[in-house]
Amino acid sequence: MKGGNVSEKEIEEKQKWIAGRALTSKIISEEVEPTCDVLGKNNKLVFATGLFAGSTVSSANRLSIGGKSPLTGTIKESNAGGTLAFKMGKLGIRCIVIEDVPPEGENFLLYISKEKTELIPANKYWGIDTQELACELRKKYGEKVGMALIGSAGGNLSLSSGIAVTDLQGRPSRFAGRGGLGALMGSKGLKAVIIDDQGAESLSIKDVESFTEIQKEITKEITSNEQVAKTFTKLGTSGLVKLINSMGALPTQNFSKGSFDEAESISGEAMYERILERGGAGNPSHSCMPGCIIRCSNVYPDKDGEEIVAPLEYETIGLMGSNCGISDLDTIAHLNKKCNDLGLDTIDTGGAIAIAMEAGVIDFGDGKGALELLDEVYEQTWLGKIIASGGRRTGEVLGVRRIPTCKSQIIPAYDPRAIKGLGVTYATSTMGADHTAGQTLRAPVEHTRAEGQVEASRNAQITNAIYDITGTCFFLGAGINKKLEWLSDLATAVFGEECKLEDLYAIAGETLQREKDFNYNAGFSDANNQLPEFFYFERNPDTDTVFDVNQEEMKMIF
Amino acid sequence: MKGGNVSEKEIEEKQKWIAGRALTSKIISEEVEPTCDVLGKNNKLVFATGLFAGSTVSSANRLSIGGKSPLTGTIKESNAGGTLAFKMGKLGIRCIVIEDVPPEGENFLLYISKEKTELIPANKYWGIDTQELACELRKKYGEKVGMALIGSAGGNLSLSSGIAVTDLQGRPSRFAGRGGLGALMGSKGLKAVIIDDQGAESLSIKDVESFTEIQKEITKEITSNEQVAKTFTKLGTSGLVKLINSMGALPTQNFSKGSFDEAESISGEAMYERILERGGAGNPSHSCMPGCIIRCSNVYPDKDGEEIVAPLEYETIGLMGSNCGISDLDTIAHLNKKCNDLGLDTIDTGGAIAIAMEAGVIDFGDGKGALELLDEVYEQTWLGKIIASGGRRTGEVLGVRRIPTCKSQIIPAYDPRAIKGLGVTYATSTMGADHTAGQTLRAPVEHTRAEGQVEASRNAQITNAIYDITGTCFFLGAGINKKLEWLSDLATAVFGEECKLEDLYAIAGETLQREKDFNYNAGFSDANNQLPEFFYFERNPDTDTVFDVNQEEMKMIF
Repeated sequence: MKGGNVSEKEIEEKQKWIAGRALTSKIISEEVEPTCDVLGKNNKLVFATGLFAGSTVSSANRLSIGGKSPLTGTIKESNAGGTLAFKMGKLGIRCIVIEDVPPEGENFLLYISKEKTELIPANKYWGIDTQELACELRKKYGEKVGMALIGSAGGNLSLSSGIAVTDLQGRPSRFAGRGGLGALMGSKGLKAVIIDDQGAESLSIKDVESFTEIQKEITKEITSNEQVAKTFTKLGTSGLVKLINSMGALPTQNFSKGSFDEAESISGEAMYERILERGGAGNPSHSCMPGCIIRCSNVYPDKDGEEIVAPLEYETIGLMGSNCGISDLDTIAHLNKKCNDLGLDTIDTGGAIAIAMEAGVIDFGDGKGALELLDEVYEQTWLGKIIASGGRRTGEVLGVRRIPTCKSQIIPAYDPRAIKGLGVTYATSTMGADHTAGQTLRAPVEHTRAEGQVEASRNAQITNAIYDITGTCFFLGAGINKKLEWLSDLATAVFGEECKLEDLYAIAGETLQREKDFNYNAGFSDANNQLPEFFYFERNPDTDTVFDVNQEEMKMIF
Repeated sequence: MKGGNVSEKEIEEKQKWIAGRALTSKIISEEVEPTCDVLGKNNKLVFATGLFAGSTVSSANRLSIGGKSPLTGTIKESNAGGTLAFKMGKLGIRCIVIEDVPPEGENFLLYISKEKTELIPANKYWGIDTQELACELRKKYGEKVGMALIGSAGGNLSLSSGIAVTDLQGRPSRFAGRGGLGALMGSKGLKAVIIDDQGAESLSIKDVESFTEIQKEITKEITSNEQVAKTFTKLGTSGLVKLINSMGALPTQNFSKGSFDEAESISGEAMYERILERGGAGNPSHSCMPGCIIRCSNVYPDKDGEEIVAPLEYETIGLMGSNCGISDLDTIAHLNKKCNDLGLDTIDTGGAIAIAMEAGVIDFGDGKGALELLDEVYEQTWLGKIIASGGRRTGEVLGVRRIPTCKSQIIPAYDPRAIKGLGVTYATSTMGADHTAGQTLRAPVEHTRAEGQVEASRNAQITNAIYDITGTCFFLGAGINKKLEWLSDLATAVFGEECKLEDLYAIAGETLQREKDFNYNAGFSDANNQLPEFFYFERNPDTDTVFDVNQEEMKMIF
């Protein structure tokens, strides 16, 4: 970004299976000094596809975005659906690495097509938010381009800003939300990456016949999977609301309770009914990326059938709904819309709003007040800047003691005293508090007990890493009943060389180790692998438990 | 603080030489879980005297205050002059340990006299600032009590709040400013410690004759020391302004330069002339604690001879003056007065204001704007809360890249690229950026070169620890030409058992090791022992140097 130079490099043969999170973490750990200034010239921002990007395998076109995190100070990978990875795959691009920082006040778009790769001055776009930006750029660069872009929050280096990826309809709504990667992109003076795949072929595949065969089997397996049809496709992630609430794990009023009196009204079932009832643009089942047949995403309409936001998901409902004491889905949808537009992570922003509520800035349950807090972010008031800096800084600035973060990142919508395996993941993950780093909800353990949680988290962290390195969705695993061999078989077909599942496990293991090493060298040790102290002695009243997984056992997780 | 219980304990015989910082760090490292929530019930706040408190040995009545730091997350000791340690010594109190937190909304004063020790409800005082509080408490508890107290900033848990100790005239102006210990005291619901020493004897001394003899020799040495008379007594710490400016080490405009065009107008010499010229309450030479004959403190008056603030010192002038581009001593004095009243550290607050200037909140050099920023702290506006959270959080919330902190604490008024030994101290000290943890200004090294700085810092860190553990002032060392044997001889006289200087060195060494261990267990490693990255590549234009002390050598400092 300093001199406007663009160069290309072939992926080495021996690295052909290193993709997605494996690739972002490899590049960051090899090329970025762990103690570097996160917003300085020595940090890098990496966009990487998985192994099957550019194909139409279901749920296999996720985009990994990595760097040293402005929010957590650790290595970071955050991934999103949308169309960018698909288009990169079609163009034969495994990854894009953004280096250095531009001269003060200069900003750019990165435009890539089959013919050219160029940096285009973008100062006129710098201050605008994602909705308007996506419209403007589609007008200028074509309706079918795929984009990754930041709103004003990323441009202002706000620590809870994410990167939006456009979906099949061009909405900038699929978020690599966590870790403040929007601020990293902002520090690079990069407003958007635009991929125009006109004229490109699909993913280059050595053994098309086998590939097609496996793809068919996967499709068949998913379409015959009852859980997919009944839950994922119908209710989406929001199908979790009632389950998690019944487990006493739904964060409520800044993690002071594990069940919400009005959980019913923010449930997936309620949302499904409302979407159907309102009709119009509403759609309970929508694909977030090309080829996905699980379609857990949705389009949530207002009373007139006009779209408010797409999608409205479980984590947002948990953090901006119950955790703020807000029980009105329309309000949550509008909060989500504003976050998407500003380019803010809904989890960290929901956490920040709940902390502001605990500080007495507004009352728990005050949906109108919460919306106004986001207006303050738009207006760039001081309070808006506090909120946009994420939950931890909001708590520190406002003098709040109960700040539910690990490595400065707000804990997602599962109370760690009620689902203790996730507590282990939050505490020990290389990514800070992150459910996607090791989801133990389906692990064969008693969630409120300490026993077996370290093992459950370890297994989940490794399996989740396999999804992240292959660019596949966590839900694909459920859809194919964890027949992960299909992923290595697909890789074999793509590259024409045998890839075994154990090879993918090996890459996942190496990736986790690299990330741990990076974090260690950035100044993080076992002492940082803990939950906030209050979870150890403040009881979750709905489960009557504290977090009590043995710390020594947690240290030995890997 | 939870149940209002007060208990007493004798110091064990074998611990008789463990005082000041040695004692605060011993108690914190033995009794506080390193990973505890800094504002939670498991942190502790310790007030400890040195070995000679309650005597009239010059410069030997400093008060050490310790805890796990809300600002840095490390172990912390911050010490101050004033009368509290003297009065504690007279009452035979080596230390006071504050434990647990009170029920929500309850606050207390801790009152100690010869007759009783009690916690007194203090809700009516909670919101008021130090000037008014000290007046009220003197009215109620007597003009001669000694006090340690917090202003509204500490009560609001602001991360850059300190603890004020009253001086000989009852001003709440001697600050244990660093590390946010005011927020720790605020989290304990403790508004003030009041010591009434009526009827108490002086320090109990086994061999009064020897003690008096050594005290006389110390007095003679100090009074015959020309540097003391010409610099410390006449100009105070502000005598450093011209020297440090000439070395290119005076932080200017958020550490972007090392010399200030208007350094002359904020120099010790200019201040001295002005104090004499204005007369009235002004006094260029004032004792900060009982018995001090160095008298480096001062009383700075306004045009009418009315006191603005006492004292006005070098670090405040560097951080709130040149580092903010402010060249008017009156303005700096008023900034200092407001900080003292609110109970804010002038170093971290000066750093925060300069960072706000870099963010464009106000311009560099805008003294009126800076004063208004502190009014925002009084009014508890959102911007005021940002500033009061210290330089690091201010920079993070406002999206500023150049944040001159180590372990989240603003670097004091010596540019680490120009006085590299101090750079080593800032980076490696257990206390975060702190010049008093290892001042290398007088070390026999070439300050702009990398050679010898690690050794210089190591020696300074050990020697400085000896002052901190004995409760003596850093300037005493200069006053007695580093004849530190006098300190062990005094200890021998006090306790009637031979104390060798090597015993004090051993305690200093143990103390540093304890602190390192605590920090390691709190999650700090060698990777955290670095300066902010910009000092490594952004040149100080006045010395044309970057910070280039070898990181591997720094790792081996102890």
